[in-house]
Amino acid sequence: MVDMLSFNSTDAEYIEELTGYVAIPSVSRDATAETMRSAAEWLAAQLAFADGRVVATEGHPVVRADWLHAPGAPTVLVYGHYDVQPTGDLAEWKTPPFELTLDGDVIRGRGVTDDKGPVFIVLKVAQAFIEQEGALPLNIKFVFEGEEEIGSPNFPAFLREHADELSADLVISADGAMWRPSEPSLSIASKGLVTLDIEVTGADDDLHSGRFGGTVANPVHALSTILAGLHSADGRVAVDGFYDGIPSLSEERRAEIAAVPFDDDRYRAELGLDELFGEAGYSTLERLWERPTLEINGLKSGGKYTVIPHSATGHISCRLVPGQRPERVIQAITDHVLAQKVTGVRVAVRPDKAGVPAYTIPADHPAIRAATAALEDVYPGQDVLLAVIGGTLPATALFEEVLGAKTLFFSFSTADEKLHAPNEFLRISRLREGMRAWEQLWRLLADGPHRLAPVIKSRPER
Amino acid sequence: MVDMLSFNSTDAEYIEELTGYVAIPSVSRDATAETMRSAAEWLAAQLAFADGRVVATEGHPVVRADWLHAPGAPTVLVYGHYDVQPTGDLAEWKTPPFELTLDGDVIRGRGVTDDKGPVFIVLKVAQAFIEQEGALPLNIKFVFEGEEEIGSPNFPAFLREHADELSADLVISADGAMWRPSEPSLSIASKGLVTLDIEVTGADDDLHSGRFGGTVANPVHALSTILAGLHSADGRVAVDGFYDGIPSLSEERRAEIAAVPFDDDRYRAELGLDELFGEAGYSTLERLWERPTLEINGLKSGGKYTVIPHSATGHISCRLVPGQRPERVIQAITDHVLAQKVTGVRVAVRPDKAGVPAYTIPADHPAIRAATAALEDVYPGQDVLLAVIGGTLPATALFEEVLGAKTLFFSFSTADEKLHAPNEFLRISRLREGMRAWEQLWRLLADGPHRLAPVIKSRPER
Repeated sequence: MVDMLSFNSTDAEYIEELTGYVAIPSVSRDATAETMRSAAEWLAAQLAFADGRVVATEGHPVVRADWLHAPGAPTVLVYGHYDVQPTGDLAEWKTPPFELTLDGDVIRGRGVTDDKGPVFIVLKVAQAFIEQEGALPLNIKFVFEGEEEIGSPNFPAFLREHADELSADLVISADGAMWRPSEPSLSIASKGLVTLDIEVTGADDDLHSGRFGGTVANPVHALSTILAGLHSADGRVAVDGFYDGIPSLSEERRAEIAAVPFDDDRYRAELGLDELFGEAGYSTLERLWERPTLEINGLKSGGKYTVIPHSATGHISCRLVPGQRPERVIQAITDHVLAQKVTGVRVAVRPDKAGVPAYTIPADHPAIRAATAALEDVYPGQDVLLAVIGGTLPATALFEEVLGAKTLFFSFSTADEKLHAPNEFLRISRLREGMRAWEQLWRLLADGPHRLAPVIKSRPER
Repeated sequence: MVDMLSFNSTDAEYIEELTGYVAIPSVSRDATAETMRSAAEWLAAQLAFADGRVVATEGHPVVRADWLHAPGAPTVLVYGHYDVQPTGDLAEWKTPPFELTLDGDVIRGRGVTDDKGPVFIVLKVAQAFIEQEGALPLNIKFVFEGEEEIGSPNFPAFLREHADELSADLVISADGAMWRPSEPSLSIASKGLVTLDIEVTGADDDLHSGRFGGTVANPVHALSTILAGLHSADGRVAVDGFYDGIPSLSEERRAEIAAVPFDDDRYRAELGLDELFGEAGYSTLERLWERPTLEINGLKSGGKYTVIPHSATGHISCRLVPGQRPERVIQAITDHVLAQKVTGVRVAVRPDKAGVPAYTIPADHPAIRAATAALEDVYPGQDVLLAVIGGTLPATALFEEVLGAKTLFFSFSTADEKLHAPNEFLRISRLREGMRAWEQLWRLLADGPHRLAPVIKSRPER
């Protein structure tokens, strides 16, 4: 690399600026429209150099910006989101979730690593280019949504309506995560997602457990039986048809995964566990990267008071791999659950909208090669691993379908940073590493041996 | 009966007065000390004629009063409580729980039937006696606690410390309930209670279900399996030793119960159920009155967001019958749960303090005979049923142990009035029926053929 931007702010200055962004509690599941808009406006203001603007749409607004003053250069679309997950139990947070807190070499707060910090990195790189070179090295469109954490219910329609305006040779996602802190990595796939609730209901109201106990079925008993039956003891999902369509794992891929340095014991210890567990017949990393899962994310019923609850609900999510179809998975689970024999209660399966299939980008795609070179520049002497994102990025399948463009995941979040959990954090070192890497990525895609070739648009009929 | 008090207030005036009492949100589980004290002071003020006073003690205070100006007459101790259950989900209440609301022929609000309304009845009867006759017909001590709904953790010590001061020939409890609205009933037993939590823990924190899915055991799966295994499919509790010590149900008692008018179908329909359910081999009423239960009262884990929760808890309560020992039941459940094979998670059983054994009063006890006569007076032409309270009144076993006195349940609550649940209510007609019945009960115990004989105190060494 010849050109190098100067990132002139101190870490403290960056953190102070990011503090204001994290302070906006943009929980897409339940924040007010005003709060969500305020987060969107924060972003739009940062993108003033590219006509940053908040675009009203169904649901929470989208933030858009365009800098298209590099004629002949490739065009990339930068994607991210400004919404965050709910905090969960506040009592489990060491510090208030929306007060960004410096703690040693990390900063802690809801959304700091998913996805406010990684988006902040992109903003600072773009601003530095404009300030120091008067231009970006290639044409960049920005699109940031506010509903990623609730499954992007309205983003597909937005994309379809603005397909021409958003066309690009490549999408680069500031969402996603490096899979661990110890070495640089790129993701060549992300898992799909379906979510649903299993609800068991009994009497019209909660009943006093003494005055009615023994006379009626308890919905929690039935729910427990149903949930217990979703897996067999060997960790396999016990739902007929759940694994349909998944190609068997090739010996070649097994060998590749086996070659990745991965210490089961250390991983286990870092999570505070006595043992790991999962589907029989696969290594830990094979299960994480190549196999689908069905997890119960939460339970809701009654409380610590002496009632027979009138309802009991299990919240379920499945992470899907290539070959699985979201609607088929939901149907298989529904059939399985409704076939269970229960007495004295009613059972309903309620799928959420917006199932998302798994997504892949070929390991030899030009964007993967450029990104590898950029990471090698920032992390000299380290191999760049090609990993799989266990998480789900609903927009990627859409970008391919609607824009005909592949998505490169280029995030400086790390998978251990308590995404979606209490005490979410971001490593401070990632801020500067990320800025340098995005700078190099853009330069590489714009010019030289890794220059991004225009993609032949294979946009389907709409 | 010759003497009859005049209850001069209108229903509306009574309801208005009771509204002020219900408005104090005296939820013993989580109200402030100030709120609890305010409810206690409301009671004490009502008892001014008997030197009503709030007595500070460990936990929420006790309300005491004594009217002992009937030399030679028997002495009764009136028991009740001023604390209430938590509201549960506010969204399920038709009207705000602490705003007593008139709705047709019922009044709705948290605590109105358990136990604020039934206590209010006693207050009004005593006040009417003082106003109209200048005296009560017998000596009465009053003791109202503020921790009944959390298992009376401090009341035993209070009773023991004040045993001489509280000595009486009979305890009359304004807590409890008639088991249904259609006919008068007296309770000759109440079930015991033990409560405990089963907690399954996994990793140190909630984990993103994509980034960690497939690699670790999910505590909810293990909890579901454990909870599902607490019962067999025929409704029996599948815990070895749970039923130990319970005498088998005699043919005589079965015949008595079979003679009680009880319509399974109507009961089922009133609860909004398609079918009833419970332990195989027993009728609905046999299960309700004579058999112990194990119920899961609530579940707590994660939520509707895509995590693998780090913990999952089931709240359990068991209603016990005579013969079962609380500590043995807890041990049996603990042994059963810890014997389950689980992988990758840790399981703990956490019993709460204050297990309570079941309680009985003989059907031919003098107090039952007097109470039967009082109810026959108020409900002419109706048989008085001898029923069992499925609920638990922790104080009763204590009264027997510490004061050597039996307890008569004499409440004008009804079991269907959504005790402990949202939309708790009290039938307005019960106010006047209750006042008349308490009046007659006191008169009968004081004089005439049902006069209460002094009990030979069998107080054990302390």
